[in-house]
Amino acid sequence: MTTTIRPATRADVPRILEFIRALAAFERMPDAVTTTEQNLEREGFGDHPFYSCLIAEHDGRTAGYALFFYSYSTWVGPGIYLEDIFVEPEMRGLGIGKLLLERVAAIAVEQGCARLQWAVLDWNTPAIEFYRAMGGEFLDEWRNVRVTGEALRRLATCGGADGAYEP
Amino acid sequence: MTTTIRPATRADVPRILEFIRALAAFERMPDAVTTTEQNLEREGFGDHPFYSCLIAEHDGRTAGYALFFYSYSTWVGPGIYLEDIFVEPEMRGLGIGKLLLERVAAIAVEQGCARLQWAVLDWNTPAIEFYRAMGGEFLDEWRNVRVTGEALRRLATCGGADGAYEP
Repeated sequence: MTTTIRPATRADVPRILEFIRALAAFERMPDAVTTTEQNLEREGFGDHPFYSCLIAEHDGRTAGYALFFYSYSTWVGPGIYLEDIFVEPEMRGLGIGKLLLERVAAIAVEQGCARLQWAVLDWNTPAIEFYRAMGGEFLDEWRNVRVTGEALRRLATCGGADGAYEP
Repeated sequence: MTTTIRPATRADVPRILEFIRALAAFERMPDAVTTTEQNLEREGFGDHPFYSCLIAEHDGRTAGYALFFYSYSTWVGPGIYLEDIFVEPEMRGLGIGKLLLERVAAIAVEQGCARLQWAVLDWNTPAIEFYRAMGGEFLDEWRNVRVTGEALRRLATCGGADGAYEP
């Protein structure tokens, strides 16, 4: 029983999209995924990749993935933000998730990143306990804010044009 | 009384570091800033920039900054993460922060980003109200987790080597 972690290739994109949808369903937001194979391929494997992805294989079957990008802290410099980590339900309990996380941490250290950061849903107690046990700090004094859709377009329109402003 | 927003250049790095330190002091973490002018210059203005920065000038004086990088969502694609936004205390109330935020939103829309996201401290009520008024959603069901320092090195070491694992 061997688990191998390898970088994803373009050929993995259909499987990555399956994983993304399975993770969104687990997170109780199955309809939130609007991306496509075409987008994932262009955004991850084009001239200007927005993300990196690792694939876990267990006994020759794809078992899970970790997907991340580089973040930046003005206090300590570059970091890695782990957007997604997921292992197929029938492959859990084999240490595959931990192995994915360890590999992402190894890449962070190799690349001189001072931080590895991610987010977890507040009801996902087993994950929270796991992250705490491996030394994760919870930044509970920070609230995440997001602007999307019409609110983003409205905000953008105010600030467009020439950048001169008369208060 | 005119406010102008412009992209930062290498020559702004000393001023950006002053802003970063002033923001950290406001956030009650004045000792958290370990970066240097050399790091900021290399990481923002080298061959592989980790961040972008805008400078606000008001009546010819640098008044504030916004610093951001590209994030990635497996649900909706590329986004912008606003790491820092700050206006000098004596320049507040002139709409400079809003202008910076609007310009970042305009860049997000121009670049085809579906999201603009950032974090705010839970005691910063005026900022929270401001963000809510402009259509910000608070993602309070997500907890941010971070691994740094010795915990990151320990995690990385487990997962290093050859990637084969016997559970």
